[in-house]
Amino acid sequence: MSQRVYIFDTTLRDGEQVPGCQLTTEEKVVVAKELERLGVDIIEAGFPVSSPGDFRSVVEIAKAVSKPTVCALSRAKLDDIDAAGEALKHAKHGRIHTGIGSSDIHIRNKFNSTRNQILEQAISAVKHARNYVDDVEFYAEDAGRADLDFLCRLTEAVIRAGATVVNIPDTTGYCLPDEYGRKIKYIYDNVPNVDKATISIHCHNDLGLATANSLAGIMNGARQVEVTMNGIGERAGNTSLEEVVMALKVHKELGYETGIDTTRLFPVSNLVSQMMRMPVQANKAIVGRNAFAHSSGIHQDGFLKHAENYEIINPHDVGVPKSSIILTARSGRHALKHRLELLGYRYDKPTLDGIYKRFLDLADVKKEVNDKDLMELVR
Amino acid sequence: MSQRVYIFDTTLRDGEQVPGCQLTTEEKVVVAKELERLGVDIIEAGFPVSSPGDFRSVVEIAKAVSKPTVCALSRAKLDDIDAAGEALKHAKHGRIHTGIGSSDIHIRNKFNSTRNQILEQAISAVKHARNYVDDVEFYAEDAGRADLDFLCRLTEAVIRAGATVVNIPDTTGYCLPDEYGRKIKYIYDNVPNVDKATISIHCHNDLGLATANSLAGIMNGARQVEVTMNGIGERAGNTSLEEVVMALKVHKELGYETGIDTTRLFPVSNLVSQMMRMPVQANKAIVGRNAFAHSSGIHQDGFLKHAENYEIINPHDVGVPKSSIILTARSGRHALKHRLELLGYRYDKPTLDGIYKRFLDLADVKKEVNDKDLMELVR
Repeated sequence: MSQRVYIFDTTLRDGEQVPGCQLTTEEKVVVAKELERLGVDIIEAGFPVSSPGDFRSVVEIAKAVSKPTVCALSRAKLDDIDAAGEALKHAKHGRIHTGIGSSDIHIRNKFNSTRNQILEQAISAVKHARNYVDDVEFYAEDAGRADLDFLCRLTEAVIRAGATVVNIPDTTGYCLPDEYGRKIKYIYDNVPNVDKATISIHCHNDLGLATANSLAGIMNGARQVEVTMNGIGERAGNTSLEEVVMALKVHKELGYETGIDTTRLFPVSNLVSQMMRMPVQANKAIVGRNAFAHSSGIHQDGFLKHAENYEIINPHDVGVPKSSIILTARSGRHALKHRLELLGYRYDKPTLDGIYKRFLDLADVKKEVNDKDLMELVR
Repeated sequence: MSQRVYIFDTTLRDGEQVPGCQLTTEEKVVVAKELERLGVDIIEAGFPVSSPGDFRSVVEIAKAVSKPTVCALSRAKLDDIDAAGEALKHAKHGRIHTGIGSSDIHIRNKFNSTRNQILEQAISAVKHARNYVDDVEFYAEDAGRADLDFLCRLTEAVIRAGATVVNIPDTTGYCLPDEYGRKIKYIYDNVPNVDKATISIHCHNDLGLATANSLAGIMNGARQVEVTMNGIGERAGNTSLEEVVMALKVHKELGYETGIDTTRLFPVSNLVSQMMRMPVQANKAIVGRNAFAHSSGIHQDGFLKHAENYEIINPHDVGVPKSSIILTARSGRHALKHRLELLGYRYDKPTLDGIYKRFLDLADVKKEVNDKDLMELVR
């Protein structure tokens, strides 16, 4: 009887635009396939008008995955939308994500425009996007600081123009959970055609509140949540996929479910961290190295007496591999490959051969090679 | 007319017990002095009965700082409390923090006890601690999962026994913000002598909700919040000091203030990260390397038009140094020392001399040495 919450992953768009995180098209396809296997519902694959590389990535991801919807970003400009529509030509399920600033701060200072002009531009953009795809998401940028009644008018107008999803982002990571939840509720209470679209939430973590804000949005009616692996993204990052998914799973009493195979969280987190060269801090929730480590004597004692004393998530549920398997100099190439895959590392044969050689050298010295040793070896 | 929220820093206790984070007494004294300068109200300095090193650290910190209260942890055992009281002998303002499990899970599985026995043990512990100090904090471990009416009875009893602060920790990081806020409100509504003590909150970040839970606690009456720098601590860590402090500062409308000099946040974060060998991830809120970096073209354009478009905190308010100061081969030892201190690094003269030599080598090659270069140089 749980209600389904849709996971919109923007690791490859909002995450990838961070300095140092850029991936090649081929790397993006690898991540996209892993996100499909993880069970995300929508993959935001890029911003096609921004560069030929981004365009090609959206094309290739659209060809490579079949289950998730592939989404392309555009501003509320006809050229942007044309590029997005073109890039999605091969997608089984394609979605154009278009939008414009909705707060007076953005309308005045960024667009030098008026509320009415913004409304007209939004309607045209959605209508134009519908020429390419049946599934159009509209983002009301900086909705977190927008006038609520204007936000309602804008939401109503874009739904009437054909938007299937309306994204209410807290672009600057400013909102408090209660406040953000109330905004979503206000939209549900005041937009007459709100039942004809999905309301989506997109939070940033500038005050460390992205996960709480996202949960508040869901509890007030939103049914799509926009997230990234490891919470990477602009500035302090986006909402962490792994935190929202596990909070909903641990708190079953809330009555929501996602399509995520949580046992894939740890390997996908590692893959993204490794490919994007963005280390995850040891005390990161769910996927950090210490997330399930009990260190103080009091805690270790309590944990050994009864795991539930200090553990609300079983590490195996999020794919943290059992540490009882230890490799030795007698372990073969296949065992090494399998273990590395559990940890989120995938290599072609020549690279693996090189790692295997270094593994044997290490195993000669250390006798037993554990996961931590392996992760240091491949870095 | 803002209400004062007291900042209880447990970086040196709950933070320091993490594997790999152990500090020497001398290092702890350096951190404690920086915490004093930062403006924290209470420093939890250690757990004296646990080891002679921890005992000595509490003694030395108690001697080294004068403004903040120095707090020592103990279980609800007479020996523990004696050690804590002894270690605090030199403190200007000393506090003993004692307590015991309050959830049925802990009472049954960890203590093999009953609610009534726990109540008696708690009362004795507080009374015993009051023989040493006037300021006694009681922690009701695992309060997040405790029966609420029992928690109220326990709170009332320890206040009657002389506790000045009662800590209601969400030990396993299980609670949702609304739920945690309601617990605190329930305690205020149902404990007749609650006005005779401060209610304290202590959250863990297992689901990424520690900051939101702490704010919910404050908004429902708690006036002390237990935090660590960079959110380090058991498993996924404790509530981040910098996040709670800045959320209260950015959201002045809530009506709370702290004694923190926020311009010291960035250097203290760096100092702790460096000393404890716990890197802060780039997308960490407030103190991450990217927390104030605007990367996408859309964001950069909007930011340059008007900073407020994408920025809710001025980086200078949290002590991120202006990056316009660049060192060259002509910069002296003093300029290097000053710059390193802004970044949170402090060295004795011989170490600084060595760094200065390597700095000159680098400046010869690079011409201009920026903060990032410096931070790599000293690592």
